[in-house]
Amino acid sequence: MAEINIIPLRVCNEVRPGDKIDSMIADSLLQSRQALADGDIVIVTQKIVSKAEGRIVELEKVKPSRKAVRMANDHGKDPRIVEVILRESKKVLRASGGVIVVETRHGFVCANAGVDQSNIGGDDLALLLPLDPDKSAATIKNTLESRTGKKVAVIITDTFGRPFRNGQVNVAIGVAGISPIKSYVGTADMHGKKLRVTEIAIADELASAAELVMGKIDSVPVAIIRGYKFKYVRKCSAIELVRPEQKDLFR
Amino acid sequence: MAEINIIPLRVCNEVRPGDKIDSMIADSLLQSRQALADGDIVIVTQKIVSKAEGRIVELEKVKPSRKAVRMANDHGKDPRIVEVILRESKKVLRASGGVIVVETRHGFVCANAGVDQSNIGGDDLALLLPLDPDKSAATIKNTLESRTGKKVAVIITDTFGRPFRNGQVNVAIGVAGISPIKSYVGTADMHGKKLRVTEIAIADELASAAELVMGKIDSVPVAIIRGYKFKYVRKCSAIELVRPEQKDLFR
Repeated sequence: MAEINIIPLRVCNEVRPGDKIDSMIADSLLQSRQALADGDIVIVTQKIVSKAEGRIVELEKVKPSRKAVRMANDHGKDPRIVEVILRESKKVLRASGGVIVVETRHGFVCANAGVDQSNIGGDDLALLLPLDPDKSAATIKNTLESRTGKKVAVIITDTFGRPFRNGQVNVAIGVAGISPIKSYVGTADMHGKKLRVTEIAIADELASAAELVMGKIDSVPVAIIRGYKFKYVRKCSAIELVRPEQKDLFR
Repeated sequence: MAEINIIPLRVCNEVRPGDKIDSMIADSLLQSRQALADGDIVIVTQKIVSKAEGRIVELEKVKPSRKAVRMANDHGKDPRIVEVILRESKKVLRASGGVIVVETRHGFVCANAGVDQSNIGGDDLALLLPLDPDKSAATIKNTLESRTGKKVAVIITDTFGRPFRNGQVNVAIGVAGISPIKSYVGTADMHGKKLRVTEIAIADELASAAELVMGKIDSVPVAIIRGYKFKYVRKCSAIELVRPEQKDLFR
């Protein structure tokens, strides 16, 4: 095993709706002293992808449903935000103390459907998750590869809370070029015994590693992870990280 | 933000019960070409700590209780393993399909109380989590600091599964010198708006980052994370990462 490096990358300009985020990341890379290398994994925070894709809702234009008003009253939230959360969700799993845990339309389980109000630039705005984060990742990957000539993987991330443990961690919500799970099925341990622990969610671990250089306020929306060996794949999806409901002991 | 490096460290010899793991890690460091630096975070996999501390159970000596036999029959497990899991647990949360999710005596929620049968060197052996992982971390930290003269933090890790998402990720079960949660409470975002997302579980993210160089079969039980700025603290515990039961929506 060799060393792995996590390299922060600032994006040159503030991202606005309609921007081409793939080109902006490529430009920022080419303008930085940082060149891409074959096998790099480029980690991109959801926020700049969503902004560029115009996934912003003006709350004054949102008319909350009766259900949203009722839930908002029960949980001390803005009814318009609750309406936005419900529109982004397939199903509400739990609601308590200002947090509504849902299954998003993509299939992810997270608080408030990933709807965010910080770092957007207006009190009356809400930012949604990208519509198709795998597709967003693939677009960024293709542009980076054609602009730099290097073969890379891309992961789009968001910070999620989780049951049992305090604090949020950064996880993968979109992937391109990398299988999100590394399987050790059938592999033997150092003593020749078959491993029981068989799958590591490497895309989530890579996302968490990247968060260490991103921070919350330092405006580092992109990180490059260099030196991590992975199998390059054409077909992959962050939905592989979602445990099917019927196999989940905590739904 | 500067670059962060994740440096793998092999431990020179196979760890056996009664070994001083703190000295072994210090020896391995001093024998490697890798010097410690002030502010390094040394991540140590639970397995070598538990082995050194003799947290190994010979299953032939375990007499399963009636409860263990019943659960073993229900879930297709070895009754002796179930007995060991129950002894390590305060409470069983769920049991299904060979997995028993418990609250360990420390307070962690994980599958099979962290009891492990791979990479131990015998079919009839089970490895338990360290009795007091924070204390184990503190011992390693003190020895590394006195042997190298550098100020470091230490995190002891294990791979845990989690609800909603497939695959395991490496998390912190013991810490020394570093607060496991980074709080952004009261911090303003780029636009002066107060952040709603307020706590990041950095010890878990550091653990996940370290797993990327550790792997499952490569016998890299230690990683050094260099370049991550953290506040050095005297008093800390990985139990800060555990959400109290009454605040957990999924217990």
